[in-house]
Amino acid sequence: MKLLEEKILSEGKVLSDTVLKVDTFLNHQIDPQLMQAIGKEFAERFSDAKVTKIVTIESSGIAPATMTGLELQVPVIFARKRKSLTLSSNLYTATVYSFTKQESNDISISKDMIGKDDVVLLIDDFLANGQALKGLYDLVKQAGAQVAGAGIVIEKGFQSGGNDIREAGIRVESLAIIDSLSNGQIRFRGEKASK
Amino acid sequence: MKLLEEKILSEGKVLSDTVLKVDTFLNHQIDPQLMQAIGKEFAERFSDAKVTKIVTIESSGIAPATMTGLELQVPVIFARKRKSLTLSSNLYTATVYSFTKQESNDISISKDMIGKDDVVLLIDDFLANGQALKGLYDLVKQAGAQVAGAGIVIEKGFQSGGNDIREAGIRVESLAIIDSLSNGQIRFRGEKASK
Repeated sequence: MKLLEEKILSEGKVLSDTVLKVDTFLNHQIDPQLMQAIGKEFAERFSDAKVTKIVTIESSGIAPATMTGLELQVPVIFARKRKSLTLSSNLYTATVYSFTKQESNDISISKDMIGKDDVVLLIDDFLANGQALKGLYDLVKQAGAQVAGAGIVIEKGFQSGGNDIREAGIRVESLAIIDSLSNGQIRFRGEKASK
Repeated sequence: MKLLEEKILSEGKVLSDTVLKVDTFLNHQIDPQLMQAIGKEFAERFSDAKVTKIVTIESSGIAPATMTGLELQVPVIFARKRKSLTLSSNLYTATVYSFTKQESNDISISKDMIGKDDVVLLIDDFLANGQALKGLYDLVKQAGAQVAGAGIVIEKGFQSGGNDIREAGIRVESLAIIDSLSNGQIRFRGEKASK
């Protein structure tokens, strides 16, 4: 998605070979116009999928997911992160390991929100190791619902999550795939390496 | 806001004299169409305020804030909750006490996101004791920016936050003000008590 790639190039900060900071438009400050364009793009890519619900995870997934839900005219559910298992019988819960923070967190959604007749589109801001996305997938499968696929704003193509999840047969649509952050340079998939 | 009050009446669950659950459209599942209508309403009410930025707090404030930002065509910043003070010199930080959880959390925003020329609209899903809103106000004042006011989706008019903040001279626009949840009944401000 050209608009997104341009935004990443103009405002993204490469902090290391694996870390890209995009907190001026996605992770802390949000650009609502860009989120609307992202929502329209996801809605178009999944227009044939008969999506009935969108599931994302707090907090940075909420803005792109809500804009996608607006376009597809379906509700959006955000999974909550919890430090420890809540003693509630009314939650679907999955454990997500964060490589960045080196800790496990539970994520959960209320059983009231998804049923077996639902077709769910997963939305998240980043796909790197794929742990969060696998957790969301797990929650939806616990509900017996179908997963239409995953819409990702930025995929780190040099980490294994995207491949793992595609190989598991899940459709992944990433609006920008970054193949390298080496030497402070952002290189998108499909680009030739600059000299 | 009539559409919102109808939604609260049809889907809100009164759990006690002080607790209203609205997780089918605001706090867990999000109704994007309703959020768009809410965004338009806030934008209209603050259309004269020359707002340059919106500040909210993760997670339930993000959807209504993003829709308001879309209408006003300004960026949205969500303050992050942190368990303890992050050792970063580049954050404005305020401490927010939660009466519900009986614990204090720090909330913070990056100093890069707001400057003294900004006019900030605060947005949040609920206003009860006003602790979160006071924290957001504090963050914006640390930046030396002006506060245009606060847009609140649901105000619990029977708790003191709204009055406290209005008495401090801050403009508060609440789209639904609930004056009572007694006896399992939701009573909005301006309504007569039912027999």
